Amino acid sequence: MKIDILTLFPEMIEGVLGQSIIGRAREFGLIAITAHNIRDYSPDKRRRTDDYPYGGGMGMVMQCEPLYQAWLAARQDQPVHTILMSPQGAPFCQQKAKELLARDRFILVCGHYEGVDQRFIDECIDEEISLGDFVLTGGEIAAAAIADAVCRMIPGVLAEDASFTEESHFAGLLEYPQYTRPEQWRGRNVPDVLLSGHHKNIQDWRRLQSLLRTQNRRPDLFAQLELTKEDQKLLSSEQSCGRQNE
Amino acid sequence: MKIDILTLFPEMIEGVLGQSIIGRAREFGLIAITAHNIRDYSPDKRRRTDDYPYGGGMGMVMQCEPLYQAWLAARQDQPVHTILMSPQGAPFCQQKAKELLARDRFILVCGHYEGVDQRFIDECIDEEISLGDFVLTGGEIAAAAIADAVCRMIPGVLAEDASFTEESHFAGLLEYPQYTRPEQWRGRNVPDVLLSGHHKNIQDWRRLQSLLRTQNRRPDLFAQLELTKEDQKLLSSEQSCGRQNE
Repeated sequence: MKIDILTLFPEMIEGVLGQSIIGRAREFGLIAITAHNIRDYSPDKRRRTDDYPYGGGMGMVMQCEPLYQAWLAARQDQPVHTILMSPQGAPFCQQKAKELLARDRFILVCGHYEGVDQRFIDECIDEEISLGDFVLTGGEIAAAAIADAVCRMIPGVLAEDASFTEESHFAGLLEYPQYTRPEQWRGRNVPDVLLSGHHKNIQDWRRLQSLLRTQNRRPDLFAQLELTKEDQKLLSSEQSCGRQNE
Repeated sequence: MKIDILTLFPEMIEGVLGQSIIGRAREFGLIAITAHNIRDYSPDKRRRTDDYPYGGGMGMVMQCEPLYQAWLAARQDQPVHTILMSPQGAPFCQQKAKELLARDRFILVCGHYEGVDQRFIDECIDEEISLGDFVLTGGEIAAAAIADAVCRMIPGVLAEDASFTEESHFAGLLEYPQYTRPEQWRGRNVPDVLLSGHHKNIQDWRRLQSLLRTQNRRPDLFAQLELTKEDQKLLSSEQSCGRQNE
């Protein structure tokens, strides 16, 4: 996987994607992430990359040419899927992460200031993605989130290959609560079932907790689930017990 | 505004929140962001912070005590609203950013591995927030996004105080396209109206573009809008022209 990121703040990208799991995967050569400083491609002597908006208004707009030259340098004469981080884009989700995983290569462009000249978008951008319905100072954190979400699914990046497949959002369910040592902590105990060694009971308890959590916290996700007969049995036995879990 | 972040990777937080607009605001003393290394609070000689999950399963779970000690150190005997970054949380949004802005202080806890011991969550966490419906290697990027989204709204952080109020998601509309110099770029022109100097026409064009964008790209947001009579007029004149903007 090769990801190029066009940004005015390459140190932000390096700071966050140079550490931890993704940093290690880059060292091992499993992924190549390159941050290109847009400023380096400005034709302007003072390395300017923005200017006032036509039609007036607050803030500054990123100019076409520095972005375009940075984009040419990043794609190296290859057709590369190019994504603009933008509040105007489609909200990012796990399905989109999987789509990007299937590509061998992509470019992320980080917007800043009040926006990016629309002509660069029309000319070079294949897709606009938003991290969510909130506003950030720039696209860097959003680009880092996307790179992280995609790269962690590449085999070998996580310590255990299988570990990402079990997690929340892959199965449309929230995860069950987890406990580790010690057995007792400040008057709070690990649930007995987890200490029982009874594999089937543990599995049922975890499944039920996931179902209840999803139902209580994310009714929108719960509504999309296709419950198995086993799930329905777990939920109805819970209700008949009158317990108030989750 | 004071934000404490509990993390296993403080360099990630510093790397991303030590630069650009947020980095400058910290230098100016407008905001205080402190990253605490959870590892420093481990009672274990080898500074261990995780262990195997009770009941079996893949991955490691973050232990209560190092998190608890880090949390005590961060809150300094004050009651401080504490948020866990977690895929099980409520999805982050601009409304939530505004809620956090209204607090003088909060703590963000970055989860890692397969999760965090539920007893720490029960004991110390007031709220769980998810950045969105996707999975990240850890909570650091999510915490950085939240800190950024909140801090940019603090007066003085952005160069122009008013500039954040005009933006997307504040008004429930996507932003209109922006253009800056030069007037012509690789055969693409700035729309005539923006060069006209006719303030009312510019305003109408921008409003219409915002409405059309929102309608086309985010019908979910568009459905929540309360259109003014002026908006309806703009949209219907657009339709009667049969133009295919956006």
